[in-house]
Parts: sequence; C-alpha cells; structure tokens
Amino acid sequence: MILIGEKCNGMFTAVGKAIDNRDADFIAKLVSDQAKAGATIIDLSTGPGRDDAEDAMKWLVKTAQSATDARLSIDSPSVNVLKAGLEEIKGIPLINSTTAEADKMAKLFPLVKEFNAEIVCLTIDEKGIPQTVDQRMEMAMTILATAMDMGLPTEALYIDPVILPVSAAQNQLPLVCESITAFKNLCTPAPKTVVGLSNVSSSAQEKKLLNRTFLAMLIGRGLDAAIVDTLDVDLMNTVKAAEVLLNRRLYAHSFLKV
Amino acid sequence: MILIGEKCNGMFTAVGKAIDNRDADFIAKLVSDQAKAGATIIDLSTGPGRDDAEDAMKWLVKTAQSATDARLSIDSPSVNVLKAGLEEIKGIPLINSTTAEADKMAKLFPLVKEFNAEIVCLTIDEKGIPQTVDQRMEMAMTILATAMDMGLPTEALYIDPVILPVSAAQNQLPLVCESITAFKNLCTPAPKTVVGLSNVSSSAQEKKLLNRTFLAMLIGRGLDAAIVDTLDVDLMNTVKAAEVLLNRRLYAHSFLKV
Repeated sequence: MILIGEKCNGMFTAVGKAIDNRDADFIAKLVSDQAKAGATIIDLSTGPGRDDAEDAMKWLVKTAQSATDARLSIDSPSVNVLKAGLEEIKGIPLINSTTAEADKMAKLFPLVKEFNAEIVCLTIDEKGIPQTVDQRMEMAMTILATAMDMGLPTEALYIDPVILPVSAAQNQLPLVCESITAFKNLCTPAPKTVVGLSNVSSSAQEKKLLNRTFLAMLIGRGLDAAIVDTLDVDLMNTVKAAEVLLNRRLYAHSFLKV
Repeated sequence: MILIGEKCNGMFTAVGKAIDNRDADFIAKLVSDQAKAGATIIDLSTGPGRDDAEDAMKWLVKTAQSATDARLSIDSPSVNVLKAGLEEIKGIPLINSTTAEADKMAKLFPLVKEFNAEIVCLTIDEKGIPQTVDQRMEMAMTILATAMDMGLPTEALYIDPVILPVSAAQNQLPLVCESITAFKNLCTPAPKTVVGLSNVSSSAQEKKLLNRTFLAMLIGRGLDAAIVDTLDVDLMNTVKAAEVLLNRRLYAHSFLKV
C-alpha cells in the first residue's frame, strides 16, 4: 500500500506560518514524522493564496529532502508551481494532480515524461465531478488513452475516483467503492488507483472512524494508494490489518510493530 | 446489516457454568445486553460435550425469550438439539448451520420448511473446506439448487464462505472477500451472505482490530449478515460507519448514537 502523507500543506495554519517564516525545523520534523509513521510519499502543498508559491515550493522540496529519503509529491493547481517543485526533486516525483480535462492533461502529461514522474489523475472533466460509476469509467478510459497517445507508461498513472464528503454527497460513496473495482478491471495490467481519503469526513463528526472504515473497504476492493494522515495511529493500524487480511503482508503476532 | 450475537455459547466457561446451573439471570442478562448493543439475532449454543443438550437448548430458548424480543438462532451440530430449540421458538428462527453435504441438507432443509426458519449454509462438503473461490461458488450453487428442489425460498438461505484464522490460513482470506462478491452475482435476487467473523482472529494477536477491519472489508463487498461479538463497541461503531459510508444508513452527526 502506498501511503501519501497529507500533513505538509499550507492550508493548515501552523504549516502556512512555517512556510511564511521559512521555518525549516518545523517542516523537517513534520516531514520526518510522517515518513517514520509509514508514509511512502510526502505530499507538499504551499496552500492557497500565496504570491511566492514557486519559491515556497522549491524551499519546501529542499527542506523535505534534507529531512527524509521518502519520495515527494508536488501538490498544486498551478503548472508553474508544479514545475518549480519538480526541478528540485531527486527521487521519482508524484504530481498531484491532473483532471481528465484535455487542456490540463496536455499541460501536465509532458511534465510526467520530462521528470520521469508519476501522476494522480482525478476523474473530473469540463462538466465537473461524475455522478455515476460509468462516467468515472469513461473518464478513466480518456485519461489512460490520452496518456498512451502521448507515450506515457500507464504505470505512471494513479486514477482517483474522487471522494466527496459523506455529509454532502453520501450517495456517491458506494459508487467510489464500485469504481475502484471497475478501474481494476479496465485493462491488464490494471491501472493504479488512489483516493484523497480525508475528504470523506470533511465537516463530519467521527472523522477518524469514518476515514479508517472507508479506507478498509477501499483496500478490500484493491485500492493501491491513498493520501492520508499517516500520523493517525488507528488509521495506520487499520492499513496494516487490512494488508495482513488480504495476504499482502505476512501475518506475525507482531504485525503492528513492523 | 443483520448482526448475530455470538456470546451465548456454552463453550465459554462462564456460559457453560450458567447452563449447568440453569442460571436464568446470567443468561437473560447476556441475551439482553447483546440485543441492547444492536444484535438483530441472538445465537444460542449449549457448547460441546453435554449429555443434556436437548433439555439445555429448550431452557436456553425459553430463558432468552423471557429476556428479549430479538430473533434467536439455534446453533448445534446435532439435528435433535436443533429440533428441540426450534420447537420452543416463537419468532422466525435461524438454524446455524448446514454444510453443502447432501445428507446434512436432506436432514436440515425440511426443518427450515417445518419451522418457517432461515438457515446458515457453510460452503463445506464431504471433501472439506474449499481452497478456491470457484469451489465455494460450486458449493453455493449446490446449496441453492438443493434448497429450490426441496421447495425452500432462497431468501431463507445465508451462504457462508467460511472464514479461516489469519494465523493458520492467511491466503484464504482474500478469497473470502472475493467469494462474497461472487455469491452476490450468482443469481437475482442475490442470495444472502453471512460469515462467522471471530474465526479470522482465532489464536491471533490484535483480535478486535483484525475483526473490525475484516468486517468493514466484507460489508464493502455486500455482506448481509455476520455472527459477531456485539458487545465489542469499536466493532459496532465500525458497522455503523460502514453502513453510513455505503449509504445504507442516513448520515447524521449523531450516527453513532442511533
């Protein structure tokens, strides 16, 4: 299971402040804590409303790389900020994210090639977020076909069915589960799948319970990766248990400790 | 979600003692506690090695019925003990359980008809517990066809793919997940599915974590019923969260409290 740590995001007040002050110790600790907790990749976002976003992203990448050997994900709606981050990354970068919109893919897929990167691909197009599994499938097909036409290896793509909050769009969540199964049956080898988990519990009570329960269900469907709070110990234990139960991680009495 | 409370079982020392002593207060409290915690059905088993099992089962049923309006499940390998219990039950009984063995079905399916009961059907046959999804599917087909030949409504059947312990047969657990999906695609309307959950963590560490994580994954596959410890609060909260996430229970901030 690929776990992408979500905490280093300027939209969180303390992180935003640390970016403002270029507080390297704060960021290094946040990055290192997530990696130690089991994050395979650390997501880096400068957050919204920032004039110096390109500079800030470069600094975030350098600071993160000084603190961990974990892979990094560059998270921004701006192509320039993505590029600024990608130029600094030493390992295999993850680009977070493109949609299935033609102009977005036209801009971002060349970056995947140029930087030998991987990319999160949201099943969202010009018409917005899909309401059915079939629409998500169509967009996944569009994404895969466009990537192949541009000479990208499909292994570089992580298809994201887009989780909406349970408090706002409850009826969409079973469709997210079914979409994971549908994506895994799209082609051989199956495309990789990813979700931004915490969105499910946005504005909800019992956030952590909802997050870990939904993640268990999605892992049971074959989910490959998730953007999560890796500092949530119960969530991480759920992931370990799920992997043991699906025979992806060998059971030993000490399975939580390894 | 149909939750079958597993605690009233003579194999647990305290329960065995209470049955020996015909301690009605102990049993009534155990039954009532499980019902209050959310058990839809209370499983009753006199446990192994008991000469007075038929008498004991009759007493268990009467005692349970004095304590709750919840449905009851009669759990015994003996046809005579099942019959003894069934004769006392006022509501719709659940028979726990038959296998896919011809002689077992020939004895138990007539009881389903006679007592307007439902029945748990394990995908186990003369050759033992199956090793593949296909073998489980074949046995499920045999069970459904036999029931239909004997004039039973298939809605009375709960097909059980048989959970083995993670510590002994880890590779079988992903197949249990896949079997739930396969059973649900067998016919329309889909047969009901059930598991005996706690078996997954038999002899394991972190039993509760393994139980609730596996249950979330199975509910995500469409599981209809489970024999569980309804007194495990974290497990019950996981069930509530899973039902909310699958849009089977309306989300409200207070969803854990209802």
